[in-house]
Amino acid sequence: MSDGVSFTLGRLAEALGASLQGEPGRVVTGVAPLDAAGPDQISFLTDLKYRRQAQASRAGALLVGRDVSGFSAPLLQVDRPQQALITLLALFHPDPATEPGVHATACVAPTARVDASASIGPLAVVEADAVIGPRCRVDALAFVGRGAVLGEDVRLYPHVVVLADVRIGDRVIVHAGTVLGADGFGYAFDGRAHRKIPQVGRLRIEDDVEIGANTAIDRATLGETVVRRGTKIDNLVQVGHNCDVGEDVILVAQVGIAGSSRVGNRAMLAGQVGVADHVTIGAGTILTAQSGVPSDVPAGEIWSGTPSRPTAEQKRIWAGETHLPELMKRVRALEKRLKDIEERRA
Amino acid sequence: MSDGVSFTLGRLAEALGASLQGEPGRVVTGVAPLDAAGPDQISFLTDLKYRRQAQASRAGALLVGRDVSGFSAPLLQVDRPQQALITLLALFHPDPATEPGVHATACVAPTARVDASASIGPLAVVEADAVIGPRCRVDALAFVGRGAVLGEDVRLYPHVVVLADVRIGDRVIVHAGTVLGADGFGYAFDGRAHRKIPQVGRLRIEDDVEIGANTAIDRATLGETVVRRGTKIDNLVQVGHNCDVGEDVILVAQVGIAGSSRVGNRAMLAGQVGVADHVTIGAGTILTAQSGVPSDVPAGEIWSGTPSRPTAEQKRIWAGETHLPELMKRVRALEKRLKDIEERRA
Amino acid sequence: MSDGVSFTLGRLAEALGASLQGEPGRVVTGVAPLDAAGPDQISFLTDLKYRRQAQASRAGALLVGRDVSGFSAPLLQVDRPQQALITLLALFHPDPATEPGVHATACVAPTARVDASASIGPLAVVEADAVIGPRCRVDALAFVGRGAVLGEDVRLYPHVVVLADVRIGDRVIVHAGTVLGADGFGYAFDGRAHRKIPQVGRLRIEDDVEIGANTAIDRATLGETVVRRGTKIDNLVQVGHNCDVGEDVILVAQVGIAGSSRVGNRAMLAGQVGVADHVTIGAGTILTAQSGVPSDVPAGEIWSGTPSRPTAEQKRIWAGETHLPELMKRVRALEKRLKDIEERRA
Repeated sequence: MSDGVSFTLGRLAEALGASLQGEPGRVVTGVAPLDAAGPDQISFLTDLKYRRQAQASRAGALLVGRDVSGFSAPLLQVDRPQQALITLLALFHPDPATEPGVHATACVAPTARVDASASIGPLAVVEADAVIGPRCRVDALAFVGRGAVLGEDVRLYPHVVVLADVRIGDRVIVHAGTVLGADGFGYAFDGRAHRKIPQVGRLRIEDDVEIGANTAIDRATLGETVVRRGTKIDNLVQVGHNCDVGEDVILVAQVGIAGSSRVGNRAMLAGQVGVADHVTIGAGTILTAQSGVPSDVPAGEIWSGTPSRPTAEQKRIWAGETHLPELMKRVRALEKRLKDIEERRA
Repeated sequence: MSDGVSFTLGRLAEALGASLQGEPGRVVTGVAPLDAAGPDQISFLTDLKYRRQAQASRAGALLVGRDVSGFSAPLLQVDRPQQALITLLALFHPDPATEPGVHATACVAPTARVDASASIGPLAVVEADAVIGPRCRVDALAFVGRGAVLGEDVRLYPHVVVLADVRIGDRVIVHAGTVLGADGFGYAFDGRAHRKIPQVGRLRIEDDVEIGANTAIDRATLGETVVRRGTKIDNLVQVGHNCDVGEDVILVAQVGIAGSSRVGNRAMLAGQVGVADHVTIGAGTILTAQSGVPSDVPAGEIWSGTPSRPTAEQKRIWAGETHLPELMKRVRALEKRLKDIEERRA
Repeated sequence: MSDGVSFTLGRLAEALGASLQGEPGRVVTGVAPLDAAGPDQISFLTDLKYRRQAQASRAGALLVGRDVSGFSAPLLQVDRPQQALITLLALFHPDPATEPGVHATACVAPTARVDASASIGPLAVVEADAVIGPRCRVDALAFVGRGAVLGEDVRLYPHVVVLADVRIGDRVIVHAGTVLGADGFGYAFDGRAHRKIPQVGRLRIEDDVEIGANTAIDRATLGETVVRRGTKIDNLVQVGHNCDVGEDVILVAQVGIAGSSRVGNRAMLAGQVGVADHVTIGAGTILTAQSGVPSDVPAGEIWSGTPSRPTAEQKRIWAGETHLPELMKRVRALEKRLKDIEERRA
């Protein structure tokens, strides 16, 4: 996966704004973790708890923090090694160039507007009145429905489904198999059957959102479902109709959010968290894995468990539970001892 | 999304069987929620707890219950406003007409039988001996396998996969990315490896079922998996092999039902509920979100928690848990006080 | 589903290595469960608890254990009836023959290498430099990305997505809608936004793995995600970047495993289990349904609950919970009685 790319340490120091402790002419051909890197690869120490592994590494160079030293390997010292690592990986793994244009086997409706710089892959479908913006990349077998709009630099991986009238901003990435804008789950029981409530609202995805594989985000009943700027969503996540997911939110894999709930900016929902409908999760709040959230959670807190509570409280409960069988024995013993006393007094 | 449709209030009153309090010639061009509706739109008050919002609404008309009054806006009074809202939404948002016929890019096997009134979208695949009934709509990139049968008025959204020999009734809606009839998960360990048990049964979906996006319902090992009439299934749901899901059941997003389990008519499984294999959920029973169900649940009950119990009981346990750390302190204090008494007596 | 196949009992006894108690010339035309089998079908008794149902069965023959007798129907006695049932089902339901070759509507890049014995279905896409090995079957609308490699006898069902550079071994089965090799979920917050960490590693699936429908297994950030030989994965499962899933592991539907976790050989994770990142599950360990696993679990154990504990311990806690409301009352009563004694002494 090194893509045949190589750089001198001098060139990398320049690109990363790093101080180089070592030979600027030395060449590296790839990035690898500490334990896997060989002498022709650069590795990284973004967390000092791995210092020992860094010392044992065979890497030909190390990306480290500004004040980190004491290694035999050449060092690239930067202020923020994790951020620099992102740049480093992008240098060694440039996105493969994509030819602009519509593949001969793609099926694009005459009334769709596809920017000349966009790329539509083999057997992709773009329906009537859809708009595909500059430098968008619609991969093989992806589907863009009637009247849907993609901004600039959007990437739809293979088999993504963007249904009618969905609005997608700029620099959005949607991974394979994800469905955007399916009908929300709404019925009214008429005494005999569940009658479908037409789901005639929209879905809007703002700029810089990334959405994982096989996720589903529903359109609104009326009005819109919205995922706001900078939010990152993992695989197999469910976002119900009329939800409002704030900015820079993190939704980890298999999270489910029921209809009309709101997630505040920079909130973080860990894996398999479930949120009931019409609930508000405050800004910056963290819900730990598998939390079940039946009602509002204030901003800036860390909550856990089902039904979820502040994590500190929940941890005391979990700790208490382990003593529950023993506690029952102790209460039984107390009852017996007290009965003895009471009987002797009588 | 108003689709350029408009109606006079008189025409709407007629269509909904409503009493009109107001000017019959007044025109509305769309439906919107109370807070978003403008003077050219009609809104609705289906739940009286939103009465205040209805009073503040700028809507040009309101759909309300038969005995509801006291608003300045014109009123359409009906017996069942939620049911009338469904009709109202359908009036303003008619399904876009679909051309019957097979799209030139679709791939339909010569031995498949496609009704002349059905529509097969771009790049859809219909395999040998499949049957597509009258007025069915198979969207772009959908797949109908060998020998599968679709009744009348079935809608398969883009990227739906209907595998070999699956039977689908009338008026069934399947949302994008859903897989119907994949192999069940069955193996027998032979001492060295898990050997696959061939999954040679069928899947049958009865009339008026709706299935959300990216859901998976497996075929049976032998015999059939069945989803019965009128049942509604949300996104990312798992239904295992040989399950029998009854009539008018509701399965909310991310529910998982293991093999050979039975769900009674009109049962309701909320989000992320898990049901073990060979379990029977009684008719009309409600399982609240994230319940984990290891064994049978009687009909007509409301259960919660993992392992699930009657909700009333589970709520007492959840309430008790919050006192558990304090309870442990109180038991410790009791032990100390009792020891004091015992020692003094000795 | 009997596929028009029929066998004499004599021929079946030979194929299964069975002792036949009955007429070798008798013909059966299919396999069915005890309650559904008719006189022209063979049924099976793989678990003796169904002995009564076997006695009541109308089946024309029964596959039973070597020492089982006392039925009026002809018997095929074998050492391991469950294993023999697999052979029996395969005899009656041979895989439909697939024509080798590339379907005219498939889109195969000129630099892809497709073995002449492989079959590429309608509207499938195989990108540049991909390798499709002997007797592979790539179904309709499946996608194989740039540089991906499929070994021998691999089956990709419709709508499977195999992304760039994914390596798949021999005899691997991937069910419809599954996505292999999407980007892992990795970001670094730079103070203003979540910056994407390029996911430039690989995904490797070893021999004899089977993966269910609509599952997602991510590529590594660096290095590789691996699913080892013989492992079976159900529908809607999430396996995060850099995970190492061992040999002969079972992951039941809707399991989620966060990044960099390791699952030991022959471990069994039941439905909806969640495993945190950087966790090790020991070999042979069983996690019961809905377990939430925040940290390492030793080998060879059975654990349950969230946070997960040894099942025996967790069961005592669950049992204790049911007494919690009553326990609180008993402690209150103790406090009152003790206070009475203390006051009288004072």
